[in-house]
Amino acid sequence: MSGKRVAIIGAGVAGLVSIKSCLEEGLQPVCFERHDDIGGLWYYTEQLRKGQGAATYDSVVTNHSKEMSCFSDFPFPKAWPPFLSRLRVHEYLHSYADHFALKKYITFNANVIRIETAIDGGWTVIISNGIGGKTEEIFDYVMVCTGVFSETHFPSYPGFENFDGIKIHSNEYRDSGKFKDKRVVVVGAANTAGEVACELARNGSIQVFLSMRNGTLVFPRIGVQCIPWDLLSSRSVVDRGRILDKISKWRIQDHTKIGLQCSEPATASIMANDDIQDRIVQGKLEPVVGIEKLGKNSVTLVDGRILDDIGAVVFATGYKIAFPFLKDTWVFDESDNLQLYKLVFPVGVDEPDRMALIGMFASAGAAFPALELQARWAVNVFVKRVKLPSKEQMRAYIEKKPKYGRFYRSISTLPYQEELAEEIGVNPSFWKMLISDPRLAMACWYGPQVPYTYRLQGPRTWDGAREAILSVWENTTSPTNSYRS
Amino acid sequence: MSGKRVAIIGAGVAGLVSIKSCLEEGLQPVCFERHDDIGGLWYYTEQLRKGQGAATYDSVVTNHSKEMSCFSDFPFPKAWPPFLSRLRVHEYLHSYADHFALKKYITFNANVIRIETAIDGGWTVIISNGIGGKTEEIFDYVMVCTGVFSETHFPSYPGFENFDGIKIHSNEYRDSGKFKDKRVVVVGAANTAGEVACELARNGSIQVFLSMRNGTLVFPRIGVQCIPWDLLSSRSVVDRGRILDKISKWRIQDHTKIGLQCSEPATASIMANDDIQDRIVQGKLEPVVGIEKLGKNSVTLVDGRILDDIGAVVFATGYKIAFPFLKDTWVFDESDNLQLYKLVFPVGVDEPDRMALIGMFASAGAAFPALELQARWAVNVFVKRVKLPSKEQMRAYIEKKPKYGRFYRSISTLPYQEELAEEIGVNPSFWKMLISDPRLAMACWYGPQVPYTYRLQGPRTWDGAREAILSVWENTTSPTNSYRS
Repeated sequence: MSGKRVAIIGAGVAGLVSIKSCLEEGLQPVCFERHDDIGGLWYYTEQLRKGQGAATYDSVVTNHSKEMSCFSDFPFPKAWPPFLSRLRVHEYLHSYADHFALKKYITFNANVIRIETAIDGGWTVIISNGIGGKTEEIFDYVMVCTGVFSETHFPSYPGFENFDGIKIHSNEYRDSGKFKDKRVVVVGAANTAGEVACELARNGSIQVFLSMRNGTLVFPRIGVQCIPWDLLSSRSVVDRGRILDKISKWRIQDHTKIGLQCSEPATASIMANDDIQDRIVQGKLEPVVGIEKLGKNSVTLVDGRILDDIGAVVFATGYKIAFPFLKDTWVFDESDNLQLYKLVFPVGVDEPDRMALIGMFASAGAAFPALELQARWAVNVFVKRVKLPSKEQMRAYIEKKPKYGRFYRSISTLPYQEELAEEIGVNPSFWKMLISDPRLAMACWYGPQVPYTYRLQGPRTWDGAREAILSVWENTTSPTNSYRS
Repeated sequence: MSGKRVAIIGAGVAGLVSIKSCLEEGLQPVCFERHDDIGGLWYYTEQLRKGQGAATYDSVVTNHSKEMSCFSDFPFPKAWPPFLSRLRVHEYLHSYADHFALKKYITFNANVIRIETAIDGGWTVIISNGIGGKTEEIFDYVMVCTGVFSETHFPSYPGFENFDGIKIHSNEYRDSGKFKDKRVVVVGAANTAGEVACELARNGSIQVFLSMRNGTLVFPRIGVQCIPWDLLSSRSVVDRGRILDKISKWRIQDHTKIGLQCSEPATASIMANDDIQDRIVQGKLEPVVGIEKLGKNSVTLVDGRILDDIGAVVFATGYKIAFPFLKDTWVFDESDNLQLYKLVFPVGVDEPDRMALIGMFASAGAAFPALELQARWAVNVFVKRVKLPSKEQMRAYIEKKPKYGRFYRSISTLPYQEELAEEIGVNPSFWKMLISDPRLAMACWYGPQVPYTYRLQGPRTWDGAREAILSVWENTTSPTNSYRS
């Protein structure tokens, strides 16, 4: 080891893969985790933990199939189904941490309360142990792995305070239990809103209204032949939009027909969901327009309709980004927009190549592989194998990107992964491979863009990558294809 | 009224429409209902009632869309969604009974214990009031409306008695509550098996195995444009099989790919289900082959696999036909096969035109309209507007049909309805209508084969039929198309 020390804030998915990436490059990771287990939002507890932002509900299932969602050198078990429960994801994270011996680098119940620039360069990290104790440590590098789901966001509605029923953010939602025999409004148009609304509609709520300002575009998890749609995303695809269009129209050809979309589909949110069309035609779930105001036990919509006898409102209205332990000017511009070069390096600090933020995006696509490439890029910059552009160049790059204020950007992970892999030099080169291993070349190019493909060349390859790439279809279909008679 | 009296046994769906049909023809209905409310299997109680056969579970939803499922002169409310909860179906039956003033003809808590031929012709019906009292009444006609779901059927497996966990027939299943945290085997390959297995897989069972001897063919409720598939069934369709094939392959192109079917699809059961493919790829539901034997807490499959740690087995294995109040020789042949002319008239009685059995089928298709046509045919025979063939002819007809012993026959209701409507003379005649009302003719011929079309001509037409036929699409789509922004 070089002895260079890296503070890693958070032991969720981003934190774990950051520890692993540090170890790969001979850096010394020191991870501080506020809670008492790894996994971040995949660490499920029945009650929200102190200071917890995003949380999953009990029945949550991954939106992307397992071969597209894993870390690049650690596939999900072959016997597992294509889509995974929270229990399996958490188990996977524990196996990953155990397999690469990551846990010994984690201090649990350690809350980073401030990070400052150290006098001799690097960073001073001030940590509270939660029972009054406070310590300071000096680090060469910092990786912030607390994610974008830090603070719940509630839209401001007149009458919000006066509403008498259950009124929660979706991060508090665990299951349908307390919503039984109630008329419920779920607010939001993305994944969580859809899944919560469907679960309530199936489980004893009298009626569920899904309130969306601009409608939504639904993507089912599986498609033709019950194969996960995301396996269609190969590097050879020129027109990604056409595939997405096909996917979203497969189960619900015209979203306006069942009230999921208004006349301006361009403004619609997107939603991974398999069930919503069936809940709607069975009458328990009704899509409605946005909220105008709340009453004591009613909700008035912007079209003037009043939903009365409402016993609960669930706000699946997302999160805001917050870094209570960082100087705002390091990461935000004066208009509160995140200032990160390619979503990773903060241009507001003196030495952007000594701090990285991992996971500062929401993903239309599996998050794990993109987080991993961010972490790999960061450590490659730390060890100076890869150089960042000048601050001016980075600022100019950021300037050209859309601004979201303190809300996260939802990115298309596959092109983003290619961009990061390019930075590190781990994109597979098709023409070279076509001669040495044509079967593999075809799989990398025409097969699904699986994370293993980033372990074939460049630094830190993985011996199992080829085999993993060639087993994608078998690993996807075999767990659900056991019936023989 | 002619004064001719008709004993109607049971006030379920068949019983209600039989009362109504008697009144239409001036007959005097006297209905005996064993329980204390109308609705038969749609009368839901948390506990099975004494002597109850089929029962619904809490979350049951109709398999056929509302415009295809109603009685021919009483549409479901326009505002209701295309598929209906048990609460709505029961509410509809009450409205129907109230609208046509049927309830006054029903004696509740009256258990028919025997029917005998009366000395002067007709029938003696012996009724118990359940608290020791017994009465006898003489009737001219009898309509048996107790249905085919009278007695639960359990396949016989070695070790059945020794199984230690929960072991119930699906008629006892109400919701997923007591199956939480258990590994459960659901036995069966038809609607109930699929719906129960999916509900358990969604609601806290650790793992659910769906045990099927020959696999199943799944039909989703909705299809293209989220329109109910059953609305595709028009009189103009020549190749019904092709449409069914298209429907079953829409969501699950190849049933073998997710373990729902073996190599002999011809022997597969059929299953109305929207969710099973998603439960399978999410890993909580696994289709497995038939059962070889049961252990104390295990299930051994015919392929030798042992499912262990099984906490519950739900037998969704159907029902047997039983008429404890009829002489077996009236309705069964010596090999225990039901002997009913066109599923209605028992050829084993002296005067088949004085007794009708209504609802002695299971339906691939909505049951209400077929039950109604059976009842209409029966009363038309009673009042001698329609004549039955000779007993020999009827026996010859029955002889040509497949035999099912004491198990019900699952029929395709739409061709069966045409056959019954032909008997009564209520099939719409296309060519005649094409001149007088071409729009209606096109709707009857190229539109869905809705029950209203049997009220356009022949005896007992309904003034609202034309309007109802022309509103089918609007009534189907408008309830789920309210979102506007």
